Amino acid sequence: MTIHGTTNKSALAKNDFTEQDHKFMSRAISLAKKGHCTTTPNPRVGCVLVSYKEGNGHVIGEGYHQKAGQGHAEVNALAQAKANNLTLLKGATAYVTLEPCSHFGRTPPCAQALIDAGVSQVIAAMVDPNPKVSGNGLAILEKAGITVKSGLLEQSARQLNVGFIHQMVNKLPYVRCKLAASLDGKTAMASGESKWITSADARQDVQRLRAQSCAIIAGANSVLFDNAKMTVRWSELGELKNNYPQETLRQPLRIVIDSQNRLTPDLALFEHESPILLVNGIAQDHVENKVESDLENLPKWPHFVEQVQLPMVKNAQGKLKINLKALLEYLAKQGLNDILVESGAQLSGAFIEQNLVNELILYQAPKLMGGDGKSLVEMPSISKLKQAKALTISDIRMVGGDIRITSQLTQH
Amino acid sequence: MTIHGTTNKSALAKNDFTEQDHKFMSRAISLAKKGHCTTTPNPRVGCVLVSYKEGNGHVIGEGYHQKAGQGHAEVNALAQAKANNLTLLKGATAYVTLEPCSHFGRTPPCAQALIDAGVSQVIAAMVDPNPKVSGNGLAILEKAGITVKSGLLEQSARQLNVGFIHQMVNKLPYVRCKLAASLDGKTAMASGESKWITSADARQDVQRLRAQSCAIIAGANSVLFDNAKMTVRWSELGELKNNYPQETLRQPLRIVIDSQNRLTPDLALFEHESPILLVNGIAQDHVENKVESDLENLPKWPHFVEQVQLPMVKNAQGKLKINLKALLEYLAKQGLNDILVESGAQLSGAFIEQNLVNELILYQAPKLMGGDGKSLVEMPSISKLKQAKALTISDIRMVGGDIRITSQLTQH
Repeated sequence: MTIHGTTNKSALAKNDFTEQDHKFMSRAISLAKKGHCTTTPNPRVGCVLVSYKEGNGHVIGEGYHQKAGQGHAEVNALAQAKANNLTLLKGATAYVTLEPCSHFGRTPPCAQALIDAGVSQVIAAMVDPNPKVSGNGLAILEKAGITVKSGLLEQSARQLNVGFIHQMVNKLPYVRCKLAASLDGKTAMASGESKWITSADARQDVQRLRAQSCAIIAGANSVLFDNAKMTVRWSELGELKNNYPQETLRQPLRIVIDSQNRLTPDLALFEHESPILLVNGIAQDHVENKVESDLENLPKWPHFVEQVQLPMVKNAQGKLKINLKALLEYLAKQGLNDILVESGAQLSGAFIEQNLVNELILYQAPKLMGGDGKSLVEMPSISKLKQAKALTISDIRMVGGDIRITSQLTQH
Repeated sequence: MTIHGTTNKSALAKNDFTEQDHKFMSRAISLAKKGHCTTTPNPRVGCVLVSYKEGNGHVIGEGYHQKAGQGHAEVNALAQAKANNLTLLKGATAYVTLEPCSHFGRTPPCAQALIDAGVSQVIAAMVDPNPKVSGNGLAILEKAGITVKSGLLEQSARQLNVGFIHQMVNKLPYVRCKLAASLDGKTAMASGESKWITSADARQDVQRLRAQSCAIIAGANSVLFDNAKMTVRWSELGELKNNYPQETLRQPLRIVIDSQNRLTPDLALFEHESPILLVNGIAQDHVENKVESDLENLPKWPHFVEQVQLPMVKNAQGKLKINLKALLEYLAKQGLNDILVESGAQLSGAFIEQNLVNELILYQAPKLMGGDGKSLVEMPSISKLKQAKALTISDIRMVGGDIRITSQLTQH
């Protein structure tokens, strides 16, 4: 078996898997989903341990990864099997949605734990894209005499960890951009009036998007205009509430791009005690004009607020703006895999214009607002039709009375 | 049986219909669809004659209405039965998608033809909304001792004749408005560049929309800008071609609103020899300023061009525009049931703003064009969010790589 590179192996392996294999891997994927909103910066992983000693195979232990620093899926499943079915564990098959880790992180390597437990077969949905693992976990298992297969339900397994995989491969977070508009692409009337363009159902759907993101990015403009809190409201999570009791709710990091230092500590944003990252700019003229009195008047932020200064670049209109690519590189280094841009036409437009958005989630309210309303995205550098940003639609559906269109930006 | 008013009867009748009844009415509806692009101004109707003499029921004749002035569905089905199964016709059941007519039009009444043929039962999907019929056809049949039922698959039957029913009830045509834009609601770049925003698949779908319409309306602006022909191109009709050999293709009436008399006979519009209606305005200041030389310079239109002068009204900007409601009333009187507005942001916006559009068909190309592109609809009178036009989405689907959203405008 060649462990590095999954394409050929997956194609080959497909015929190797039984109906039972599919069933138990599906279960492992379902388990992994339970960690959807909590595992960051780790991947979502599920594990099912099955004994085939008594014929058709039955589950002797299962587990999923819930939170960084706590047990991995394999460890949780092994603990359950050891408590209930120790005699059956020897010779069992482990179904894991991601290759077991081979390195010491916050927990010892799972590959070794599986060897120690005496399993005889490990079936992984996919090889770990983390360069620290990337086939090493499977190699360790194979070297210990364990039968190793991978590639079962790989596409579904990849969907669990779109952001994690993207970050491991590209050293950039997977960026989703959420927009909401009327059917004619307006986000506000000319007067600025914009509250409740989309329905309560769509807004609840956005809460779900927030809950599964590692961080949410907005511009100072949007935060000031809406006095936005940028939090996940547990009461609006709908079905997700079943997986996450209120006390386990993780708030995504709230990132505000405030190049002109316009935010003040009295905003609603700072009422909720969960991490905030304020992004300010470093520009030559800022440094030159900085006077002693400015420094004395610096706002006093609450303890959960962090600040970072990033380089600025001039945009098409000659205005100094935060270098968004540099920001994303910085966030990737912090282990942030899934980012949600939830801002206005300017900042969303800038991310899209610079090809930094991977996925667009557009909610369209069944309304026509007419010509004078504000535009959905501002991309001043685009003047020809062939420069328009191309998308590939991956999903369209109704969310309450609104339409939700999910699309991937075609990268240039 | 109460014949007038279908609601109670339909609810009552549902339990009366057998599985066979459903099967044969479905067939009649399929037959009616064959006339989808040709029956105007008449409704689309299908008829299936079934003999139950030999047990489970078998079809002895079927027909549909193809073209005004030619045989109605019942007459065509009777002719087939007479030719092949004359002995079985007596005592047969007739399934018709619309109540048989009771009046002499271009053809004799179908109710009488069914009585003369000796059928013993008539099942109609719906009562005819035409005030000249509206229950009289069924009453004549019942008086002749025929068992009469109605309301079977009524919703499907109504879908066949949305425009015809609407016109009969409201004395206005059913107006569909087709729009095409990028996902951010732009129809053109600021430069005006707009060709091929949507895909070839979407454009083919529009040909289908045109083919099923009685008339297409555009403004002089659009016709001049695109040098548009406004015709149905048979080669682009896709599957519809199977129902309509090229020589049977009917061109919808092409209506151009040209209040300022800007069209000239050299345009591509006038190359194709099929009916055109030019709508010009009557305004007091026009009459006053009319001089002899203007009349001498009137363009010479081809023989298939008709002109009508309609009253004008001042719009929000104080400009004189054709009274669109008056235009639709005029078209209804001409027996035009289904109208397709296929124009630019101004005229489409005006129809929508004045609540004259029943259905919106929006094609969205998977592109983002940015802020400076032109708007989808111009509705200058709308300045508050609560004035925005509300829609109810009835269908969303992919057409090639584009999204097609069908919605009904909520009438105020």
